[in-house]
Amino acid sequence: MKQRPNLTMLTDFYEFTMANGFLQEGFRDKVAYFDMFFRKNPDNGGFAIMAGVEQLIEYLNNLKFTEEDISYLRSKNIFDEAFLKYLEDFEFCCDVWAIPEGTPIFPGEPIVTVRGPVVQAQLVETMLLLTINHQSLIATKANRIVRAAGGRPVMEFGSRRAQGADAAVMGARAAYIGGCVGTACASADRDFGVPALGTMAHSWVQLFDSEYDAFYAYAKNYPGSCTLLVDTYNVLKSGVPNAIRVFNEVVVPAGFRPKGIRIDSGDITYLSKKCRKMLDEAGFPDCGIVASNSLDEYIIRDMIMQGAEITSFGVGERLISSKSEPVFGGVYKLVAVEGEDGALIPKIKISENVAKITTPGFKQVYRLYSRENSKAIADLITLHGETVDDTKPLEIFDPEHTWKRKTVTDFYARPLLKPLFKKGKCVYESPTLEVLQEYCRMEVDGLWEEVKRFENPHTYYVDMSQKLWDLKHSLLESIKS
Amino acid sequence: MKQRPNLTMLTDFYEFTMANGFLQEGFRDKVAYFDMFFRKNPDNGGFAIMAGVEQLIEYLNNLKFTEEDISYLRSKNIFDEAFLKYLEDFEFCCDVWAIPEGTPIFPGEPIVTVRGPVVQAQLVETMLLLTINHQSLIATKANRIVRAAGGRPVMEFGSRRAQGADAAVMGARAAYIGGCVGTACASADRDFGVPALGTMAHSWVQLFDSEYDAFYAYAKNYPGSCTLLVDTYNVLKSGVPNAIRVFNEVVVPAGFRPKGIRIDSGDITYLSKKCRKMLDEAGFPDCGIVASNSLDEYIIRDMIMQGAEITSFGVGERLISSKSEPVFGGVYKLVAVEGEDGALIPKIKISENVAKITTPGFKQVYRLYSRENSKAIADLITLHGETVDDTKPLEIFDPEHTWKRKTVTDFYARPLLKPLFKKGKCVYESPTLEVLQEYCRMEVDGLWEEVKRFENPHTYYVDMSQKLWDLKHSLLESIKS
Repeated sequence: MKQRPNLTMLTDFYEFTMANGFLQEGFRDKVAYFDMFFRKNPDNGGFAIMAGVEQLIEYLNNLKFTEEDISYLRSKNIFDEAFLKYLEDFEFCCDVWAIPEGTPIFPGEPIVTVRGPVVQAQLVETMLLLTINHQSLIATKANRIVRAAGGRPVMEFGSRRAQGADAAVMGARAAYIGGCVGTACASADRDFGVPALGTMAHSWVQLFDSEYDAFYAYAKNYPGSCTLLVDTYNVLKSGVPNAIRVFNEVVVPAGFRPKGIRIDSGDITYLSKKCRKMLDEAGFPDCGIVASNSLDEYIIRDMIMQGAEITSFGVGERLISSKSEPVFGGVYKLVAVEGEDGALIPKIKISENVAKITTPGFKQVYRLYSRENSKAIADLITLHGETVDDTKPLEIFDPEHTWKRKTVTDFYARPLLKPLFKKGKCVYESPTLEVLQEYCRMEVDGLWEEVKRFENPHTYYVDMSQKLWDLKHSLLESIKS
Repeated sequence: MKQRPNLTMLTDFYEFTMANGFLQEGFRDKVAYFDMFFRKNPDNGGFAIMAGVEQLIEYLNNLKFTEEDISYLRSKNIFDEAFLKYLEDFEFCCDVWAIPEGTPIFPGEPIVTVRGPVVQAQLVETMLLLTINHQSLIATKANRIVRAAGGRPVMEFGSRRAQGADAAVMGARAAYIGGCVGTACASADRDFGVPALGTMAHSWVQLFDSEYDAFYAYAKNYPGSCTLLVDTYNVLKSGVPNAIRVFNEVVVPAGFRPKGIRIDSGDITYLSKKCRKMLDEAGFPDCGIVASNSLDEYIIRDMIMQGAEITSFGVGERLISSKSEPVFGGVYKLVAVEGEDGALIPKIKISENVAKITTPGFKQVYRLYSRENSKAIADLITLHGETVDDTKPLEIFDPEHTWKRKTVTDFYARPLLKPLFKKGKCVYESPTLEVLQEYCRMEVDGLWEEVKRFENPHTYYVDMSQKLWDLKHSLLESIKS
């Protein structure tokens, strides 16, 4: 079905030099813990949407070095034969946890955790980050655009402006999780079941002797799904009158209702109102008006505010590349190792920049929901194995300004990090895309409106348990002294 | 070698509905001409760099519909069986021309032209645009960054922030054409020979009991290519002193010179000067200093201006995603059809927005170079088959402000659009990446400095021959009347 090449070698070269070095240094069985987390929501939003987990699983399931890979590495003359043999016999044996796709995620919390031999846990860094960074970026952007559209369907139309083939297909997948109803991309439909949608290009209209002829031919071929592109010559003087004529002459006699018209240029807000009136007067109040052309959440919000009569939006380059912020800056950091006795030794990476200091240890993230209205109240990062007692009030506090405290009552706690792999075996079944989309919609509904604002959203609480906070601060102090 | 999946179905769905319609309408043998062109240079620059031609060729060579593709399309219940049979037997038979990779390109000129049955020429739109848009975007950005670095090597380090797997590998390829010396991405090296480079991550340093131990182990394993990451704890108080100690204790005794140190955080300009001094005083004036951490052409220019002692730059997310402008807006427009007698019928797409009016006809682009200094003077778009007589002076004029005229003397003219396919057979051999990089460097050298400014560059002349101008204006007038 999904033709995915073996992506094992899509790895930063330094992962290999380090892995080779780890083996040489006798770290073959050294167990390390890495966290993926991010530091800032795209577009200064209040949250992001997790995506890409299914492709991460696929990548990890397919990890395998071919003879050609080994020869390539050998040709570099810097790798030990023992290491090349290790790669030849490579069998992934790590434990992996991740927050499920479609979940709102917040800066600073672990969204993926990998535990296993440091050689392996290090090697998977590049593709793990790439996959989650890319799809979370697009799911987040799609969710913003879908929310701006206020219930009107949003279609992903950006393949031609995607950053490579994968970006088109995986971007369409992520956009669907974020709430888009479909895509222009046929292979995203064939491979992932994201419904493919589409109408016609200007070239269709240009190829016929007249716009009327072009519309007539299209309607004859597709009377049941007839959306006509009305802006090749002049929307109001030519496009809509020709469309109405063809609806009457072809679509209605064939027993259908016209599906829609599409406007791809000009002042779409103004034009849409005029078009709506013309269509209504022609007896087609049910005929949709699709808008496209460099749209994003801000433009859509403004159009709706100005009363645009748009029934659905086709969004291209600004969605598929997340143009206003095209990078999701997830990082992958060592947070603990195991000593020879198996005891956990937490690790911290300090920095002059406080935001870049990592949170050490093997962790879990709990989301606390109000029992009254099911709204998410806060996330609490704890040590793995710590439980959150949601039968009684819980005091949480800001990890930087610890005097900021809040007692949470009448809540329930749900752990977010789910096991994906146990000793290298996949133990997670990805839900269908439809389920992920619906789950995403419900989880976003469960956030306070203040967190969902595009401008200056409320900062959602991501706090630490007392035990984790104590651990972090004891490590900070031991380094400073 | 290069595992490229069959990308035939990476196509906007409407290409299929249109193609099916074209067949139904008796346009099976209708010959159409499409141009790809773009309207604006990324980052308000003075030019862009063409890239992606090799992957376009590969895509066109591999065009083929599988049984699964046909079943998928059949399941939509809107396609005619004759069309599905056509796809089953699909054999690409178009002519294709393109400007070679590494060439500076300018808004408004055709950079790819496709001539062939409209069913086919329409079907290839999505991947053709995607491929050229993506790689040209990255090659252009890389070239800007490389020029800002003023001769200091620039390495592409962005895989983990790329928009999907393809973006990482093809982005590394395009960045190399634009002038980067290498990449972090191992598969870009294995598959395309882009030299893979890399040092160590913070996790290497953290995993050992001390920074000194970590450096010592690395140097022991890689004495000949020892670049140490010095910012895990404190660059000046710990990182550089430990590096110098290990250079003296391990690298030099092994018969090597230290390769470098890398700084990935903090005020790199300030730190680099201090590091330079420390390394010089320790007897390592030849030890390089690599800077990384959210760099781009503007930051690099400022660092150099402030006297940063950097010998090479590792550039990640801002290069691999072209963060400041992540979309290359190439479009693909119908410019002519052939009548039943084979006569060429030029087509134009008009628009209220003058910049969106297309230039009709089957065309060629000539670049005019000064015989005196080989600098590029102007591009001249002509009808295909028109020749440019470079033995005598040539008057060129601005196609919008036709009173702006210039007589070019002592020049030679070179046609830019080269044949890639003739009747579906590839007739073009892609140069090696090394050749493309060198060609790009020389062609960019051949542009006036004024065109290469980052801010307010001079607008390079892209003019039309009198014949082409006359054709365009006669079509415009016939539509207006």
